[in-house]
Amino acid sequence: MRDSYREQLDDILTDLVQMSQTVSTAVRQATTALLEVDIHAAEKVISSDADIDAAQADIEARAFSLLARQAPVAGELRTVVATLRMVTELERMGDLAAHVAKIARLRYPEPAVPEGLRPNFVRMGDVAEKMVIRAGQTLSERDLDSAQELHDRDQEMDELRRDQFRLLLGDDWSYGVEAAVDVALLGRYYERIADHAASVARRVIYVVTGKFPDDEVWPQP
Amino acid sequence: MRDSYREQLDDILTDLVQMSQTVSTAVRQATTALLEVDIHAAEKVISSDADIDAAQADIEARAFSLLARQAPVAGELRTVVATLRMVTELERMGDLAAHVAKIARLRYPEPAVPEGLRPNFVRMGDVAEKMVIRAGQTLSERDLDSAQELHDRDQEMDELRRDQFRLLLGDDWSYGVEAAVDVALLGRYYERIADHAASVARRVIYVVTGKFPDDEVWPQP
Repeated sequence: MRDSYREQLDDILTDLVQMSQTVSTAVRQATTALLEVDIHAAEKVISSDADIDAAQADIEARAFSLLARQAPVAGELRTVVATLRMVTELERMGDLAAHVAKIARLRYPEPAVPEGLRPNFVRMGDVAEKMVIRAGQTLSERDLDSAQELHDRDQEMDELRRDQFRLLLGDDWSYGVEAAVDVALLGRYYERIADHAASVARRVIYVVTGKFPDDEVWPQP
Repeated sequence: MRDSYREQLDDILTDLVQMSQTVSTAVRQATTALLEVDIHAAEKVISSDADIDAAQADIEARAFSLLARQAPVAGELRTVVATLRMVTELERMGDLAAHVAKIARLRYPEPAVPEGLRPNFVRMGDVAEKMVIRAGQTLSERDLDSAQELHDRDQEMDELRRDQFRLLLGDDWSYGVEAAVDVALLGRYYERIADHAASVARRVIYVVTGKFPDDEVWPQP
């Protein structure tokens, strides 16, 4: 029974890693939808959000069932509880990717991102996608160095967001109010995807070490 | 030992309700900071966020300890697991109130909300505060009718947000880009506070009935 329990826990973690891959694909496609003005990519992200929600419900139910039937302790209890959190973070990242795709769809066939902001969003999209992939690896390999890298990348995202505000609120903003509103919200969505990825890393550190990283160095997202 | 365990669980729920009161105060003060251009209120919200984070950490640790030492089953396990979720939702509402207060502080002594948007934000602030209070009551009384009311209020918030976009993107927006960006983000923060309150209600329904409300009627936030 103990073996079967460990297998069940391993299966849950495998599915959580798989879910992180689905989410990273959604983030990449959302960026494609946004920057390539690709309506098919937008529709794909929006419709795949239901699959991400279903994966969440399934993983949650199995983690809950493990708690109910096996009453894990110590490191394994930490893992199951962290799983319940991380699956929620991943589901939110999927929602945020869908929010990005919905703005792309709303403005189609016009681009939602004005020309002058493209380089900024290219980097935001890249950082966000890589963070989600890295969060999945961190989880799969229980790797503390990856977790630290996620912290650094989250700071890169914050810097990109500051650049964005400088452009948005600078004197030479010439794209009007609608574009400004879109950019402000899109930037917020990418920033939140990054926050959630960093939060997954934080929980992996907790699972592996039994402690959260020092909040002085790594403020809770 | 069983009695003591139940007492511990009751204490956790009492503190969660207490935390919801702290959060509702933060939301009210954030709205005061924003609409009354009150820098002291803004500072209070921003500094009280650390107390909310501390309450979260404390409740989490105690819920985890209950799981580890008592291995609850059935309804009690559902309650403890839901507690872990709800404490995260409340902590996020505190963050969002602080985000609102930070925009108020950034623009001080100018108001961040232009005159034409005041009625909209008065209502948003009111709906958000009432939703947080009601989420606390729902939790404290395990009251399914209150939970349903939260669902209705969340739809009211969505409607207010749509009104906001109509004003923001209408032809007669005369407040410039900075105000538009502020309003778009502030609206997003209030909307998310409402989403989290509705999500707390959803989890109370789950705890009481063992099922989530019908997702056809009540989409997962």
